[in-house]
Amino acid sequence: MGKPRNAIAPTREEDYPEWYQQVVKAADLAENTPVRGCMVIKPWGYGIWENIRDALDAMFKSSGHKNAYFPLFIPKSFLQREAEHVDGFAKECAVVTHSRLEADEQGILQPAGELEEPLIVRPTSETIIGELFARWVQSYRDLPLLINQWANVVRWEMRPRLFLRTAEFLWQEGHTVHATAEEALEETRLMLATYATFAEEWLAMPVLRGEKTEAERFPGAESTLCIEAMMQDRKALQAGTSHFLGQNFSKACGIKFQGVEGKEEFGWTTSWGVSTRLIGGMIMTHADDDGLVVPPKVAPTHVAVLPVTPKEESREQVLAACRELVGRLREKSYAGAPLRVELDDRDLRGGEKYWQWVKKGVPMTVEIGPRDLENGSAFVGRRDSGAKREGMDCEELLEGVSGIMESIQKVLFERALAFREEHTRAIDDKDELYEFFSDDSQGKTIHGGFAFVHWDRDAKWEEQLKNDLKVTVRCIPEDSGEEGTCLFSGNPSPGRVVLAKSY
Amino acid sequence: MGKPRNAIAPTREEDYPEWYQQVVKAADLAENTPVRGCMVIKPWGYGIWENIRDALDAMFKSSGHKNAYFPLFIPKSFLQREAEHVDGFAKECAVVTHSRLEADEQGILQPAGELEEPLIVRPTSETIIGELFARWVQSYRDLPLLINQWANVVRWEMRPRLFLRTAEFLWQEGHTVHATAEEALEETRLMLATYATFAEEWLAMPVLRGEKTEAERFPGAESTLCIEAMMQDRKALQAGTSHFLGQNFSKACGIKFQGVEGKEEFGWTTSWGVSTRLIGGMIMTHADDDGLVVPPKVAPTHVAVLPVTPKEESREQVLAACRELVGRLREKSYAGAPLRVELDDRDLRGGEKYWQWVKKGVPMTVEIGPRDLENGSAFVGRRDSGAKREGMDCEELLEGVSGIMESIQKVLFERALAFREEHTRAIDDKDELYEFFSDDSQGKTIHGGFAFVHWDRDAKWEEQLKNDLKVTVRCIPEDSGEEGTCLFSGNPSPGRVVLAKSY
Repeated sequence: MGKPRNAIAPTREEDYPEWYQQVVKAADLAENTPVRGCMVIKPWGYGIWENIRDALDAMFKSSGHKNAYFPLFIPKSFLQREAEHVDGFAKECAVVTHSRLEADEQGILQPAGELEEPLIVRPTSETIIGELFARWVQSYRDLPLLINQWANVVRWEMRPRLFLRTAEFLWQEGHTVHATAEEALEETRLMLATYATFAEEWLAMPVLRGEKTEAERFPGAESTLCIEAMMQDRKALQAGTSHFLGQNFSKACGIKFQGVEGKEEFGWTTSWGVSTRLIGGMIMTHADDDGLVVPPKVAPTHVAVLPVTPKEESREQVLAACRELVGRLREKSYAGAPLRVELDDRDLRGGEKYWQWVKKGVPMTVEIGPRDLENGSAFVGRRDSGAKREGMDCEELLEGVSGIMESIQKVLFERALAFREEHTRAIDDKDELYEFFSDDSQGKTIHGGFAFVHWDRDAKWEEQLKNDLKVTVRCIPEDSGEEGTCLFSGNPSPGRVVLAKSY
Repeated sequence: MGKPRNAIAPTREEDYPEWYQQVVKAADLAENTPVRGCMVIKPWGYGIWENIRDALDAMFKSSGHKNAYFPLFIPKSFLQREAEHVDGFAKECAVVTHSRLEADEQGILQPAGELEEPLIVRPTSETIIGELFARWVQSYRDLPLLINQWANVVRWEMRPRLFLRTAEFLWQEGHTVHATAEEALEETRLMLATYATFAEEWLAMPVLRGEKTEAERFPGAESTLCIEAMMQDRKALQAGTSHFLGQNFSKACGIKFQGVEGKEEFGWTTSWGVSTRLIGGMIMTHADDDGLVVPPKVAPTHVAVLPVTPKEESREQVLAACRELVGRLREKSYAGAPLRVELDDRDLRGGEKYWQWVKKGVPMTVEIGPRDLENGSAFVGRRDSGAKREGMDCEELLEGVSGIMESIQKVLFERALAFREEHTRAIDDKDELYEFFSDDSQGKTIHGGFAFVHWDRDAKWEEQLKNDLKVTVRCIPEDSGEEGTCLFSGNPSPGRVVLAKSY
């Protein structure tokens, strides 16, 4: 028997990075543009982002955060106020130097009207938001100040990849000020928990929660918490971060308040963000060799209804049956909102239309042809069970559709969790560790995955791992209480950390 | 009797531009920032924008438009593809010339990594979107292509004013491609009608619909349709525009398709947009000398419930009654969604708290104090009827609250419409026209408003009006059918046009 044909070439096994590009293309999610590193997010991809945004936004609001919008530009001098911060971003920022275009002697438009001070297109907004928070915060009564912003940011990238690493990306950035370090730390942890819940319950993407090492911290943070997910090539993806900024930015920006006892104090701040990168994580967690698989909770369309009309004489009847079914399906609900159902009556051959929806990763396809009319049945495909379809009574479908969505959401999460567990290993021997992360002759990692190891926290081993294996400490997990012996030095280790190659 | 005190100083009558700034400040809508011309939109202002966005977004989607997201940057060469277009925006664009910051010999960070081609921060996106549409459109089957984008744009402004004219602003820009000029014109008109409906039904802001003269057209458009509203200083505000772009941009960007008969043709395109300027329009239509007045449909909070707790012993009882009322109010709905109710239990004096909500323009305040507990009553304020409050039975309030919201929405629209009609005049005599728009010794317009006049369409009169009176043709209204005699030349006029001073 020959190799079964798949909708995506190459397959994950054959060439993972290229498979990823082809999935994005086949699902019509996004494209590169002539502006280096900047992508266009197409309607199907943007629809997923809208669902991500709306779900997170509701979570932020329910924990008391309010949205605001701050300037796109940051004066150069503001960025410089926090030394580590500017070091972290200086190498990748877009600099606005002129305020108009003017024709030169040859009639060619050239930048003109040089600005007194260059403006940086925000790579993140701590410094400009800090400047404004300093005005807004006067007394302990103004605290906590809990603000979120949905915005675009720019960080030049040498090797851009759609969704995973783009020069411009969309994100949200939360910024808060608190009266005490303890309250700010609590906020940092709360928002990490919010991200973890969102990743697992909406994106069906299991994540580890933990803290970054000093080397991997956000520039200017005292502590960076993160969620880390395992992709299908067994690499880690940092999917969200929550930073405890201590008083670094409040000192840099002058965020001071009068405490209960009248003394003036600096505020304690946090910041936290997730971005369109989450879509990259979703793709690499669930997509298969037939294309994208979108978890129902974030799918722009839950069910695609596809009329199959091979004969002109039964065409109208089939369309009428489909329209009726669409109407009835839309009365159903899933995850607290009406089911999102699309009728695809484009004039395309049935097979082509079906495969387009498979590649887009719609959770369910429902095909109805002339032969289904009499017995009120349909041909139903569940995206989580590959490309096979099964006949089903329409009444039964209507009865069960919400449950099927729940089931798909659950199957995707459990499958991803099982995959992660399969590729996670506790390793106590250095040679075993090096073997775990070693490459074959084509440069592919043979095993790979998450290695839980004991490490004495000496940064030199971290540096060596990076150089030898391109492996980093992804996080110090929340529950790494068990003490042990460092696999590099033999010194005591306070607990295991997670090692992996990563995006 | 002395002059009644108002919450906003100066009043509209005393100093309109300063009154506007003070209303924005008192309602905590937005602030200027150290980035020239860029504002921060604060939570109450952003909440209004979210409601505007969600309502418009639903309208766009129901007419078949899909959202996408395009790059922030436009290569200089793209902007130059359409000659009139680049002329229109060259004088006000932010130019990115460098890709990083690098320390000079004194250790000062300077722009470095000069880009091969400067990038323009989008002032509008016709050219970059056109470039991508050229890839997406191949055949008549791909048409119409109906796309919308929610984004930030930048146009330097010499005299920025919060919401009305800011260097960076938030907006939506629709971009569509059609197979025929007729279909594109129909889309242009449909989206103008959508804007007019939104302005009148959501913002309670009456608008005139019409077409711009050639002098006032969007750079690169064949025809620009607009909605124009009258502010309380009797000036016009252009509140939304919809452009028929003909084949100008499809030729500039190469948007071609194979027609039904196999011939390759250029597409016909449109674009249309509204922005955060709508909030400026809303303010200047409804706000009064006590502050902002927000129409219920776009209010972030419909009802503010304010416990009045002068005595410690009854405090808990009052709070409990307020909490119960809030819960029951939230079960009510208005305009198809749950009523938005906020409990303000901050530790502030009752009067101060009440006036904060008046200045924010919340449609309804409900105060409950110890004396209201026994008889189950509350003290209810309707923002459309000034600062007076009336006792009301709580059950009656619950019964009637949705109706009161409808009533406030209606009253605001009708009041604004009456104001516009009061200040609109058909004028057939040049002297009368000049008198209508003349200033008093303080530079204030004595009458002013909308003048409907006959004009022979010769641009020289338009130019003269601008020079003599700072008056422009706001639009050629949709229903200007009546023929007449030009007030300037005595030549025949095909119909009346609307003249006004404007923002």
